[in-house]
Amino acid sequence: METDPVPGGKDTARVEAFSDGVFSIAVTLLVLEVNVPHLSQQAPASELWRELAKGWPSYVALVSSFFTVLIMWTNHHGIFKLIRGTNNRFLFANGFLLLMVSLVPFPTALIAEYIRAESASAVCVVYSGLFVFIALAYGLLWETALRTNLVDPATPSRVIKGISQNGIIGLSLYTLATGAAFIYPLLSVGICTTLWMYWGYTLRST
Amino acid sequence: METDPVPGGKDTARVEAFSDGVFSIAVTLLVLEVNVPHLSQQAPASELWRELAKGWPSYVALVSSFFTVLIMWTNHHGIFKLIRGTNNRFLFANGFLLLMVSLVPFPTALIAEYIRAESASAVCVVYSGLFVFIALAYGLLWETALRTNLVDPATPSRVIKGISQNGIIGLSLYTLATGAAFIYPLLSVGICTTLWMYWGYTLRST
Amino acid sequence: METDPVPGGKDTARVEAFSDGVFSIAVTLLVLEVNVPHLSQQAPASELWRELAKGWPSYVALVSSFFTVLIMWTNHHGIFKLIRGTNNRFLFANGFLLLMVSLVPFPTALIAEYIRAESASAVCVVYSGLFVFIALAYGLLWETALRTNLVDPATPSRVIKGISQNGIIGLSLYTLATGAAFIYPLLSVGICTTLWMYWGYTLRST
Amino acid sequence: METDPVPGGKDTARVEAFSDGVFSIAVTLLVLEVNVPHLSQQAPASELWRELAKGWPSYVALVSSFFTVLIMWTNHHGIFKLIRGTNNRFLFANGFLLLMVSLVPFPTALIAEYIRAESASAVCVVYSGLFVFIALAYGLLWETALRTNLVDPATPSRVIKGISQNGIIGLSLYTLATGAAFIYPLLSVGICTTLWMYWGYTLRST
Repeated sequence: METDPVPGGKDTARVEAFSDGVFSIAVTLLVLEVNVPHLSQQAPASELWRELAKGWPSYVALVSSFFTVLIMWTNHHGIFKLIRGTNNRFLFANGFLLLMVSLVPFPTALIAEYIRAESASAVCVVYSGLFVFIALAYGLLWETALRTNLVDPATPSRVIKGISQNGIIGLSLYTLATGAAFIYPLLSVGICTTLWMYWGYTLRST
Repeated sequence: METDPVPGGKDTARVEAFSDGVFSIAVTLLVLEVNVPHLSQQAPASELWRELAKGWPSYVALVSSFFTVLIMWTNHHGIFKLIRGTNNRFLFANGFLLLMVSLVPFPTALIAEYIRAESASAVCVVYSGLFVFIALAYGLLWETALRTNLVDPATPSRVIKGISQNGIIGLSLYTLATGAAFIYPLLSVGICTTLWMYWGYTLRST
Repeated sequence: METDPVPGGKDTARVEAFSDGVFSIAVTLLVLEVNVPHLSQQAPASELWRELAKGWPSYVALVSSFFTVLIMWTNHHGIFKLIRGTNNRFLFANGFLLLMVSLVPFPTALIAEYIRAESASAVCVVYSGLFVFIALAYGLLWETALRTNLVDPATPSRVIKGISQNGIIGLSLYTLATGAAFIYPLLSVGICTTLWMYWGYTLRST
Repeated sequence: METDPVPGGKDTARVEAFSDGVFSIAVTLLVLEVNVPHLSQQAPASELWRELAKGWPSYVALVSSFFTVLIMWTNHHGIFKLIRGTNNRFLFANGFLLLMVSLVPFPTALIAEYIRAESASAVCVVYSGLFVFIALAYGLLWETALRTNLVDPATPSRVIKGISQNGIIGLSLYTLATGAAFIYPLLSVGICTTLWMYWGYTLRST
């Protein structure tokens, strides 16, 4: 396995461009999971309003997934800014992360369909469970970058520790949300929503 | 909250690339909301023509949404050209704008389905209402840029005032369209259409 | 209306990036119009093969649309390479072209559904008719570039004439195909297919 | 036919950007083929879990297609890094490759639907058969680059031989998988999975 860092930024730029494509497509595809209600052409506006209102779990799920992916994208760039090359393991970890991100529309659609159903716990476990995997993928990406010497040596150790700690906090909280989903489904969605709001609030523009 | 501008354009370039992705995907997904008519293989061409003709609200809605998003994209770049960095609040405002833009295919599909129905007023309120939110998001983006000193100080104050005024005009007219939609649904669509034609006509290539 | 060319290539680069996004998404969305056959889990492989074989018009339509859009994209870049700025009218013409390109999946799906039906003439008229509009949009883009002095003055007049002539030839042949579609539907598809093969064969790598 | 290489990298950059778009959209669209189960709102969570578990062929197919396309994308860049221009034949070969890549979601959906059915052999033939065509397209792209002098003359002959050999190995193994699919459908999926895992393992970060 090839693990020597590749000097020069050309590779990094390409991997980022491809990653940006996957991130931006994943968030824009979310809208396809919002269903247009099917009513007769004679149904009054009040009935359509009621049907649209019933779709609130779709809207909440979409907004939550949108901002969560947006913050993932910001964190992804945060990591790539410190990277001075790529290698095999790092590319694989990045691919695993992109795969997980590309899956986000699926549990979002599940949440929209079943959040008010008897089976709410199942969809909330899947939803927050995917974020556990995404947090794991970030951890893997960052660990790989550190172990294979891809991180710019000029990076202050406080920045490195900050990223590592954030990763562990995210992983812990999403794991907690997944556990909670088995018992209190809505609590897990609440934790996920709080998390992206909190990340958004603290996120650096760097 | 971190609000100091980040010098250098690397961040801005990435945010723009991501935003461009969302804008271009949102307009291209519009075509997926146009339904292929379902007729038997024995139906004569004249019947297919009639069915295709019945789809006119889809086509009008698609064209209107396409050009509206295109003009939003132009305005978005108009703002980014004057920006010398990003910060937390600005990124959040941009994310909010992208979320709203990514939603455009949904009310477009609603318009296509219900513009000739009893419930036309509801879909027109949702359609023009989304543009109120988009106008608000632009206003928020621009206000944030001004308040957190992200705008290039070399920008002539006439340019700054022009953007602010355009924002207020757009917000006012979309709000008017939304109000009108409750009573005269087609009038609201007419206002939205007139608006993108007018913006398109006056839009600077800068 | 603002028609003075804007010096410098920054604007051009952005319009191209946005256009590239629309082109690449439009061709990749074509696959969504290919339907997975619905058979029982007990159906033998031979039956699935038959069903897949019945989908040939989908495959032909997809391949034809894919390469046609690919050649449009090449021609689009051919024009942008000679451009030294943008203006309002040019951006509008480009937007019109992108709108037409984003529509390609719709008549492609129509062809796939109805090419063997009684109503084949209608779908072939729509399919080749869209390419008439695309050819018109190219002509409009190029004419606008010429009239508003956006074309690099160093461009040899032979190159300018070549683009203009190609535009007129394309427009004429697609118009011919659309006319033919009313009487001989398959002939129109044949003309469209011959055209992209011919363009592909002669296309310069410039 | 124009086969002289075009000096300068501008063309290459654009073709790559367009190709990256197609690759990233193709992998992100895969999620649309994963179906949300349709259960009543009263169904217990255990039933939804069972339904989600039944979807395993979708998930396996998605993961396999995702990583296979990701590795194709890496190989695509591997070729483009050695290229010093483009020409007509090369652009056509690249277009053919992109077409094949854009088709990947279709056999992936077939696999998801029919892998446990009587007709499994048919879908496995189509799935691995598409990868035969993709391998052929890569071979065509590389052969064209070599024959029309597009490859940077400074490239060590060992690198050139390596790419050629990898192409032949890939083509052979996918052909083997396609043959195997007629008799042992799951074996063919196993070969395809082993292949992307192996490529991923050996892939250079260059």
